[in-house]
Amino acid sequence: MKILLDSSGLDKGPDIVIEAAKKAKNDLNIQVAIVGLPDLKEKVEEAGIEFVPAETEITPNHENPALAIRREKTSTIVVGLNLLKEGSVDAFVSGGSTGAVLAGGMLVVGRLPGVKRAALSTYVPTKKGYVVLIDMGANVDVTPDVLYSFGVMAKCYAESILNIENPRISLLNNGAEEHKGNALTKEAYQLFKNSDLNFVGNMEARYIFDGDADVVVMDGFAGNAIVKALEGGFRFTNYLLKSAAKKSFITKIGLGLAKAGLKKEMSILDSSQYGGVPLLGLKKPVIKAHGSSDANAIYNSIIVAKNTIESNMIEKIEKSFKGEE
Amino acid sequence: MKILLDSSGLDKGPDIVIEAAKKAKNDLNIQVAIVGLPDLKEKVEEAGIEFVPAETEITPNHENPALAIRREKTSTIVVGLNLLKEGSVDAFVSGGSTGAVLAGGMLVVGRLPGVKRAALSTYVPTKKGYVVLIDMGANVDVTPDVLYSFGVMAKCYAESILNIENPRISLLNNGAEEHKGNALTKEAYQLFKNSDLNFVGNMEARYIFDGDADVVVMDGFAGNAIVKALEGGFRFTNYLLKSAAKKSFITKIGLGLAKAGLKKEMSILDSSQYGGVPLLGLKKPVIKAHGSSDANAIYNSIIVAKNTIESNMIEKIEKSFKGEE
Repeated sequence: MKILLDSSGLDKGPDIVIEAAKKAKNDLNIQVAIVGLPDLKEKVEEAGIEFVPAETEITPNHENPALAIRREKTSTIVVGLNLLKEGSVDAFVSGGSTGAVLAGGMLVVGRLPGVKRAALSTYVPTKKGYVVLIDMGANVDVTPDVLYSFGVMAKCYAESILNIENPRISLLNNGAEEHKGNALTKEAYQLFKNSDLNFVGNMEARYIFDGDADVVVMDGFAGNAIVKALEGGFRFTNYLLKSAAKKSFITKIGLGLAKAGLKKEMSILDSSQYGGVPLLGLKKPVIKAHGSSDANAIYNSIIVAKNTIESNMIEKIEKSFKGEE
Repeated sequence: MKILLDSSGLDKGPDIVIEAAKKAKNDLNIQVAIVGLPDLKEKVEEAGIEFVPAETEITPNHENPALAIRREKTSTIVVGLNLLKEGSVDAFVSGGSTGAVLAGGMLVVGRLPGVKRAALSTYVPTKKGYVVLIDMGANVDVTPDVLYSFGVMAKCYAESILNIENPRISLLNNGAEEHKGNALTKEAYQLFKNSDLNFVGNMEARYIFDGDADVVVMDGFAGNAIVKALEGGFRFTNYLLKSAAKKSFITKIGLGLAKAGLKKEMSILDSSQYGGVPLLGLKKPVIKAHGSSDANAIYNSIIVAKNTIESNMIEKIEKSFKGEE
């Protein structure tokens, strides 16, 4: 098994990729390689890692990622995805521009037969374990059957990567009752209800963390809004904690004492421990890591890539869509 | 000025409405009345508050709120809204079913000329003050011009009720750049950009609490998802805090010391202090309070009603839509 790592697009720079690659090579009994600009070659090879040269990097927030993929044939992302397509490597891990990795995954690697749209999922902790959220922003305009297909893919993901048996699938909505929702979710509800999936009904966003569903399906606009709002909400809570400590000495002492315990408990919210997520619906494993990843997050993304390959998740998704073309 | 309070639909029962009414009558130099089922009459009149009899209550989460409003002519909501329409009272405050209050507001009181859809706004604290979020779930299927009209109404709201001069209006989106978004927000962006509003561009949900806009406009599906996700996120944080205290004695002691300071700082997140919100776009003031309101929240909703009347907010919205019919 050989996993190719993209050295571009990370906030913390390419060195953390080398660090993660070394650890993966030693600990995981797999082959790794890094694709990057020529000036990185020496450093990578000195670390004992195979180097793949590229000529450009696609910058995050490029105005038109699909156009960038078509034009920048020698970029780290396109070079990497082509090697994946040819079968020279078994998975591609990138912390680069989400739009470019997505567009590249669809244009270069391609979708599985029957899959209309590839999707980005993530998983977050709950009171009882983890819940898979799909789609996290790959598809901001969808139709009911596309939402349904996200449920099918997330089911395979939850089974293969999180080892959840017969995952409970729910649909994000503005109320629990069947008649609630907008035109999109009302129609999608019926598709889920009449399917073979273990559909447990609508899920209001306030109950996501309660752990009563294993998958919550939503369109990418809502998915992005929810995850980003939570990020902002946690940052604001943190700001209020610091502000309380500034205003009162007793509060400051108390928080100082509680710090270690809180840090341990809150570490469940630290996304770096989860690594990246596979793009669901592609023919080969493409793992999107956070742009803000550290070496540990990239290492964990490599583990996600390894698990994606070993669990045959892609074959399972392919099988689920057989006959639906 | 006379404000009518709905005694139905509150989680904590009708007694808190009587308590709030007494306080408002004493402190605010206004007239108040309560509409309720006949068995409440004695208690209300004993408290020195005018009682308006109704025969039924519309239950929250009624399958079809508009149908309930049409059928239940003697319900507290319909009786109350009719008195408002006739001019016997100057505002109506209800913590009842959101769907029914909305449907009733539109069917009985009616929309202002030029307003296509009434909307529900709220405001939340930020690092620098408050930000108005609109729409919080009244309209789950909207068009770009409806989103734009929310911005116009929220501008009047922010000016009249929050005393913000020339409010900065932003559009919720999945990225800051002009080209980001779904079909809806891309088109709405252009309407805002070419308007006279103080439009400051797209706002990612993660930056809502930073205070760099005074209004964030979104469709009701996204609005509901964001507010509910934040509610769930804060509850989950609270759960993790308690869990950390259970696992470590030192953490427990530390949190005990910090409690008073934290409580004071976090009180800005307590929605009961803000009271209800006016439905924007109606011809008369209808204030929707939380179903979970306590007496303090109802009292603060009465203040919102009073401010809505005194600030001439409705006249301002009416003026903004003149000539747009």
